[in-house]
Amino acid sequence: MLFHVEMTVKLPADMPRDEADALKSKEKALAQQLQRDGKWLHLWRVAGRYANVSIFDVNDNDELHALLSSLPLWPFMDVKVVPLAQHPSAIKN
Amino acid sequence: MLFHVEMTVKLPADMPRDEADALKSKEKALAQQLQRDGKWLHLWRVAGRYANVSIFDVNDNDELHALLSSLPLWPFMDVKVVPLAQHPSAIKN
Amino acid sequence: MLFHVEMTVKLPADMPRDEADALKSKEKALAQQLQRDGKWLHLWRVAGRYANVSIFDVNDNDELHALLSSLPLWPFMDVKVVPLAQHPSAIKN
Amino acid sequence: MLFHVEMTVKLPADMPRDEADALKSKEKALAQQLQRDGKWLHLWRVAGRYANVSIFDVNDNDELHALLSSLPLWPFMDVKVVPLAQHPSAIKN
Amino acid sequence: MLFHVEMTVKLPADMPRDEADALKSKEKALAQQLQRDGKWLHLWRVAGRYANVSIFDVNDNDELHALLSSLPLWPFMDVKVVPLAQHPSAIKN
Amino acid sequence: MLFHVEMTVKLPADMPRDEADALKSKEKALAQQLQRDGKWLHLWRVAGRYANVSIFDVNDNDELHALLSSLPLWPFMDVKVVPLAQHPSAIKN
Amino acid sequence: MLFHVEMTVKLPADMPRDEADALKSKEKALAQQLQRDGKWLHLWRVAGRYANVSIFDVNDNDELHALLSSLPLWPFMDVKVVPLAQHPSAIKN
Amino acid sequence: MLFHVEMTVKLPADMPRDEADALKSKEKALAQQLQRDGKWLHLWRVAGRYANVSIFDVNDNDELHALLSSLPLWPFMDVKVVPLAQHPSAIKN
Amino acid sequence: MLFHVEMTVKLPADMPRDEADALKSKEKALAQQLQRDGKWLHLWRVAGRYANVSIFDVNDNDELHALLSSLPLWPFMDVKVVPLAQHPSAIKN
Amino acid sequence: MLFHVEMTVKLPADMPRDEADALKSKEKALAQQLQRDGKWLHLWRVAGRYANVSIFDVNDNDELHALLSSLPLWPFMDVKVVPLAQHPSAIKN
Repeated sequence: MLFHVEMTVKLPADMPRDEADALKSKEKALAQQLQRDGKWLHLWRVAGRYANVSIFDVNDNDELHALLSSLPLWPFMDVKVVPLAQHPSAIKN
Repeated sequence: MLFHVEMTVKLPADMPRDEADALKSKEKALAQQLQRDGKWLHLWRVAGRYANVSIFDVNDNDELHALLSSLPLWPFMDVKVVPLAQHPSAIKN
Repeated sequence: MLFHVEMTVKLPADMPRDEADALKSKEKALAQQLQRDGKWLHLWRVAGRYANVSIFDVNDNDELHALLSSLPLWPFMDVKVVPLAQHPSAIKN
Repeated sequence: MLFHVEMTVKLPADMPRDEADALKSKEKALAQQLQRDGKWLHLWRVAGRYANVSIFDVNDNDELHALLSSLPLWPFMDVKVVPLAQHPSAIKN
Repeated sequence: MLFHVEMTVKLPADMPRDEADALKSKEKALAQQLQRDGKWLHLWRVAGRYANVSIFDVNDNDELHALLSSLPLWPFMDVKVVPLAQHPSAIKN
Repeated sequence: MLFHVEMTVKLPADMPRDEADALKSKEKALAQQLQRDGKWLHLWRVAGRYANVSIFDVNDNDELHALLSSLPLWPFMDVKVVPLAQHPSAIKN
Repeated sequence: MLFHVEMTVKLPADMPRDEADALKSKEKALAQQLQRDGKWLHLWRVAGRYANVSIFDVNDNDELHALLSSLPLWPFMDVKVVPLAQHPSAIKN
Repeated sequence: MLFHVEMTVKLPADMPRDEADALKSKEKALAQQLQRDGKWLHLWRVAGRYANVSIFDVNDNDELHALLSSLPLWPFMDVKVVPLAQHPSAIKN
Repeated sequence: MLFHVEMTVKLPADMPRDEADALKSKEKALAQQLQRDGKWLHLWRVAGRYANVSIFDVNDNDELHALLSSLPLWPFMDVKVVPLAQHPSAIKN
Repeated sequence: MLFHVEMTVKLPADMPRDEADALKSKEKALAQQLQRDGKWLHLWRVAGRYANVSIFDVNDNDELHALLSSLPLWPFMDVKVVPLAQHPSAIKN
């Protein structure tokens, strides 16, 4: 089941550089693991902003929340979730 | 080059049924042709709304505008375009 | 799987009275059937407005969209969907 | 009398971890007590966000305010309240 | 129990004059009856706009909705409802 | 002359408890004095939020500003002012 | 007593030309009379939009509402009113 | 003196095709004349929308308003104007 | 050439009192000088808020920006600028 | 390929002066280099605000993101990107 997720990251201006780097590094590792697991189907950068547009493929809402809230940067994100359905004009499922 | 496009359709309440059906039929045919051409990469329905989230793969902004403004339902759409870039944590291009 | 849905109805001012009544009557019949089927779990009126807050219990996003877009008043609704997950402090599932 | 309440929690980025944990722990205990008392009728997590959608069953507006403002996390919440009424198409009260 | 209600009226531009006058006349009669009944506690005009700010004193949310939706101009109103509670600094109840 | 005023209070998260208490205590004393003086005609709590809806009865805009800006919590308030006029359907002045 | 008023005019697209011209002509005559009377103190066009920014000098809120609602274009206006007070840094009253 | 202008065009759905074509044709002729005159310095299409972003070079606000309000499509436009100044990091005037 | 400017001031909650007082004192001196120079034509307080509505009379956009950005409180202001033109119904220039 | 970019800068109020100056100085040097390179085609100040409107000429979305995110002030910017296409009424490419 697919969900459209837009994440905008706002780190506090006074967060120490290495703390931010450590968070981003863990975030990247988990993001890539979730992509390899087929859960995080697409991940695109929004040009010009510290934000991404993503497509998640999960079993249900609970799994979606579990994945998103496990992200190291989640406490600093503004997250918007849109449930997606099959479009009648789409040529693939 | 990828673009994120969200289209919300608002047909006038007094549009005759067969006129609407003809428009939707042409829209579907063109949408499927553009998908087969590899230009309209993804097409999802926003659950609960007469709207879609799409990813377009075009050569440049001009081609994107030409494609979108050629859609039969375009005059009745609210369209939001977001240019996408490669995300550093994405495992595919 | 639960979804929070808020529907606001805006009928065109020039819709004939009996056409509106027929739509509302069909809407009511379907809404009650979906409640008896256990799909439309809760249905509340927003006090003072021609709107409702509802909880749907469906198998997936596709079923949610199929149900909502089958409502007779759907073409005249502004619909907002929020996917719900289990809350860690909730004492029931 | 039912009220729809949406709570979004924003803890200050510099709140010490154990202070946050203590607040959350007290919040959970009170939330569960209010559910057992039949005052906090439903409690759902908004998937992907540190927020909930809730239904309260209280005697009047004063009791609603007393309950909400007694929550340990209330000073850090953005709260939206919508009074609910019986819907004419609902099959239960 | 008190509710703060803001009503903004938007009559269709093509509504015949006498139809509008008839609606306004019925609206006024009912508004004054509800004031005499002690249900519509305060009624003020928002200076410069076809809108009012009102305070209703009702038994519960259901009565509030019943009163508001019975107003002849209700189908043409944008209505915002805010439940009010006793303020700890208020010197009267 | 009546004004509708909505005040939302946002105290800084790091304000010391006793400083906040002192401010609130002074605020309460002044609010009650202004009510006794007939200047602050109504004061209601917005259920669920640290906010109030008030009606002020003042001689002119200058007096309104002088009163509001003299409130101890004013530097921490978001204030919205709406001038009120006599409503043609109101049965009292 | 001064009020800042912003008026945006939206005439229906299907209003006959001469009806619109007649309304605008009456509006202009009244606007100029109110300026000569010292009630409509300033009247500026918002560059690029069918809108104006105005300053009214009236005795009270009731007079402000009476003047604005008497304007022939008032039913087609979006009106925003802001009460003005003496600024402590202003060198004139 | 430069102004940034964003114009979004919304033609009524029931405007006859040839009326719309005539308006667009006159609009184009005037737009090109103003470009040749050096008044309409830049004119870009917003990709995906019936809208443009433009830069005008005019003597003052009055000339800007005269030009914009003379456009045949102006009654059907939503117009946003932003005055521009020399940027200290710009390498040209 | 006239511009409508709305300034809303938001000083940081932790700015020392005497630093704020010094800034306000310099702001007042400059504001009064600009009024005496005929550049800051009108200056009104928005009743109830730490904000003003002003009219500036300047030669061009560059002078407007130079004046506004020279204000001591400018780094703490939210500023909205609207260019004004002669209104056809205004009886003075 | 052209993009319209609006950047609004919000430096933290407690950033030391020389740190801010160093950032601005590096920003200016890079902005001028990118202008000389033909990448940053236009750069205008929004009159009255710490913001700019810019036109970028880049090969694709990736280059746009790379340039914008390399700006020293980028972490403190709110950035809005709009892709531009050739306008049919434009007399130049």
